[in-house]
Amino acid sequence: MSRPAAEALLDVIRDWGADKLFTCPGSTEAAVLDALVTRTDVELVLTTHEGVAVSMADGLARVTRSPSVAYLHANVGLTNGLSHLYAAQLAYSPVVVLNGVKASSIQAREGFTTGRRMRDLVHQYVKSDWQSLTTEAIPEDVNRAFRTAVTEPAGPVWVALAQDLLESGAPVSAPTVDRFRFDSRTAPSPDAVQRAAELIAAAERPLLVAGSELARVGAVEDLVALAEQLGAPVVHEDRRGFERPGFPTDHPHFRGQYEIGHPLVQQADLLVFLGARVFNEFEPAKAPPLPAGVPLVHSHTDPKHIAMVHGVDAALVGDQRLVLQALAAALPASTSREVPPAPPVERRPRTAAGAPLHPADVVEVVTGSLRGAALVGDATTAGGILQQQAHQHTGDDYFVSTSGSLGWGMGAALGIAMGMPDRQVAAVLGDGVFQFGMPALWSAARTGLPVTYVVMNNQSYAAVGAALRRFGGVAVERQHYPGVDIAGPHIADISTAFGVPGQRVDTLADLRECLERSRRADHPTLVEVMTDPAQFGP
Amino acid sequence: MSRPAAEALLDVIRDWGADKLFTCPGSTEAAVLDALVTRTDVELVLTTHEGVAVSMADGLARVTRSPSVAYLHANVGLTNGLSHLYAAQLAYSPVVVLNGVKASSIQAREGFTTGRRMRDLVHQYVKSDWQSLTTEAIPEDVNRAFRTAVTEPAGPVWVALAQDLLESGAPVSAPTVDRFRFDSRTAPSPDAVQRAAELIAAAERPLLVAGSELARVGAVEDLVALAEQLGAPVVHEDRRGFERPGFPTDHPHFRGQYEIGHPLVQQADLLVFLGARVFNEFEPAKAPPLPAGVPLVHSHTDPKHIAMVHGVDAALVGDQRLVLQALAAALPASTSREVPPAPPVERRPRTAAGAPLHPADVVEVVTGSLRGAALVGDATTAGGILQQQAHQHTGDDYFVSTSGSLGWGMGAALGIAMGMPDRQVAAVLGDGVFQFGMPALWSAARTGLPVTYVVMNNQSYAAVGAALRRFGGVAVERQHYPGVDIAGPHIADISTAFGVPGQRVDTLADLRECLERSRRADHPTLVEVMTDPAQFGP
Repeated sequence: MSRPAAEALLDVIRDWGADKLFTCPGSTEAAVLDALVTRTDVELVLTTHEGVAVSMADGLARVTRSPSVAYLHANVGLTNGLSHLYAAQLAYSPVVVLNGVKASSIQAREGFTTGRRMRDLVHQYVKSDWQSLTTEAIPEDVNRAFRTAVTEPAGPVWVALAQDLLESGAPVSAPTVDRFRFDSRTAPSPDAVQRAAELIAAAERPLLVAGSELARVGAVEDLVALAEQLGAPVVHEDRRGFERPGFPTDHPHFRGQYEIGHPLVQQADLLVFLGARVFNEFEPAKAPPLPAGVPLVHSHTDPKHIAMVHGVDAALVGDQRLVLQALAAALPASTSREVPPAPPVERRPRTAAGAPLHPADVVEVVTGSLRGAALVGDATTAGGILQQQAHQHTGDDYFVSTSGSLGWGMGAALGIAMGMPDRQVAAVLGDGVFQFGMPALWSAARTGLPVTYVVMNNQSYAAVGAALRRFGGVAVERQHYPGVDIAGPHIADISTAFGVPGQRVDTLADLRECLERSRRADHPTLVEVMTDPAQFGP
Repeated sequence: MSRPAAEALLDVIRDWGADKLFTCPGSTEAAVLDALVTRTDVELVLTTHEGVAVSMADGLARVTRSPSVAYLHANVGLTNGLSHLYAAQLAYSPVVVLNGVKASSIQAREGFTTGRRMRDLVHQYVKSDWQSLTTEAIPEDVNRAFRTAVTEPAGPVWVALAQDLLESGAPVSAPTVDRFRFDSRTAPSPDAVQRAAELIAAAERPLLVAGSELARVGAVEDLVALAEQLGAPVVHEDRRGFERPGFPTDHPHFRGQYEIGHPLVQQADLLVFLGARVFNEFEPAKAPPLPAGVPLVHSHTDPKHIAMVHGVDAALVGDQRLVLQALAAALPASTSREVPPAPPVERRPRTAAGAPLHPADVVEVVTGSLRGAALVGDATTAGGILQQQAHQHTGDDYFVSTSGSLGWGMGAALGIAMGMPDRQVAAVLGDGVFQFGMPALWSAARTGLPVTYVVMNNQSYAAVGAALRRFGGVAVERQHYPGVDIAGPHIADISTAFGVPGQRVDTLADLRECLERSRRADHPTLVEVMTDPAQFGP
């Protein structure tokens, strides 16, 4: 069937199962906006900033495990969306970015909001970048973009669509999308499975490290089965690589998070990294991050991460469910191993009444009161404690980005809530982060999604303070930390002014009450908790 | 003198006369932040978003006509600053962007917030992109960045500084900056001056088109002298290319703004474009933008703009003051030409009492009440009327960006106010724009700069509505415009919550009163004027 390009484009989007189009539009997208007036199969989700459009699309794709679409405007809209596109890339999130660009003649003449090298802006964040060259090619190009985005390892893709081509009115035909879908998962080489199974079978104290990739591909239960079969303890991957839970924190084999000082890491005679990064380094390590002489098995869907920095003794490339099932089949069905006990947890004394709130106490109340909710973490310095304390049973219980792209969580939480309409979703943010994601409050108010925003306001760029302390220079000597103090905004009031009722609290009791109310609310809410600025993170 | 790299870097910055370092820092900039603790010659200006850091630096550079510095953090910070860097580029603003990047080993390993192709992100927006390769090279590289940024045609430059190199502690020497400053202006070829002068002298009805470049290089008075010498009328350049006034709107020769339908454009027998773009196209022109058969003289500092789209009869490449002075010398000292009268202005009837405010009436009150203030325009659809009505006597009386990078004006106004401490500065914004620039309110509150923000809230992406009307499809037929309605936020309350007292008004009398109060205030203020959403711009 021949249709105008804008209609055919929407047909392709619909046929890939993406029924929402997240956008902050401009004049170049008029033909598509116009086509949306009479369509009910693709919903326009308006946002007021491209960062929100991208992070909502990303959040939705993470939980539906399906492609989603962000339609950005011109060069300025694209650049505004880039930092969160980086987040989508790191999460293997199949976000198809359509980019409305100016008419062909205006591009050539370097007219308003054009870029001579648009692809350079985006190519390091996407699996493929292309600008459609003719009207007829638009449906095919967009279809190929979806195909590429969902092919494993999945990830974002970019297609630019010029206004003149989109508006030409020439009838075009859309491809039969079904014939472009295929099972792109791969199973690991049998020899590689054999080699890894031998190492695992021979180990007395193997430690399994559960990576975020397991959650992405729905392999958490497969790891549970393998851990039980092996009698092996499991830790989550290192904090800096962690994006979502690869293993239930309430499982009897769960033993916390990978770090070199962890007793089970020190005792292990084999480390098995599954769908994890080894490692996503934040700073040059002061000590080696792997125990000396302990053999390493590493598996990932994306071979890029294997033997990237540290050599391995066995590697398994492929879909993590297929990898885990192949290992289970190649290993003895039962074991005499016993899971070593969990190391004791040191309890910090509670904040004294009247004293500024310690972030750890706040996190304890938040994770306690919101137990059962899906949590989105976007708090730079409190993120570590949050991740340790959040209850995570499935791969969809906790989300964080390793991109360092502040504000991602505010939009992502909305996309996640759209994708899991039966779950409560809460985002825990820092006050610095908040200022990067504020336009998401407009989307929260407009969609009415009952997301709970918790802002831990320590009035600081605590990460900068921590860096100055690490640097150990004059700042420490004089106890004067430039670039840290960001006190000022009344965040709860800002939220209320956006139409998302906000409340500021400075006691744990008030916090608890607010969170209880938020659980019952049928609309978004925000609670701003004042925490101790003297605590530069955990 | 040998110093640690961070100190030498700050010496170079100071010696180039940049006494402010605009930043939204992260951990990679610790050494520089630490060095700033004890220095008084370079001031840290903290911001809460990279877009604010870049637009403040840009605004300051525009009015001081000197280089300024924005220090951005990692790949995510750089991408957040890109859209306003595009604004700086279009304005030939010598903004030196320093980019703190992760330690060398972490870059190689694709660790946290690294990019394998950082330069690709920025190279189309800067004159030069470089990452320092050694500690010793840092002062030299940054010095060269300043030299390149200020060399005409001026513009932004990017230098990345890795954390390990910056923190190494190895003593380095800083170059003697004075020996790297030189007069980079160029005068036009005498033959070219001769050719242009002949055309001008022979013309009976020449029309001078004053471009933004005249204001940037301080050539407005030279154009006044030439216009008087020639007895020629002057118009500002086309709206889409206009960034600041190249000619006083209160001069007797001023005749409005270039557009093909302007009677003086239609009557001219010679068009002389001076420091203007010909043209910055927004959409493919429905009619030719130049009158047929009329000869064209075009002059610009940047040869890139000359004969880019339209052929010319004479061209003058060089500094616009030198060009104007050369033309003045080559032309007869007096003339018998008379400046044709200004075409009559149609007066729109005033908004009826009680009716929603028409944007034109609001602009009339704003430009009237704030007469004498420097205005920054960042209102997408109301921008046109604002530009026509704003009183512009010098090149520093009105600022706008042709980048389409929303929110630029909110930070730029602060930089402009820093650079002109004796002027009132006011920024006129749209409500869509506002959501892109909100973190600038934090900087307004923190610096206390008495900037007046006027937000014209039509609760719409009116530009999108205009595009749908232009497209003329189903949206028009059904009078249903998707992607337009952004009603919701109480902008004045958001401002107040940031510490910038805000007030919402919906009558011209209240608006007038607020603006009067803002003139006397010694702190920033914001007024939100509700305007008619049915008016999709002029």
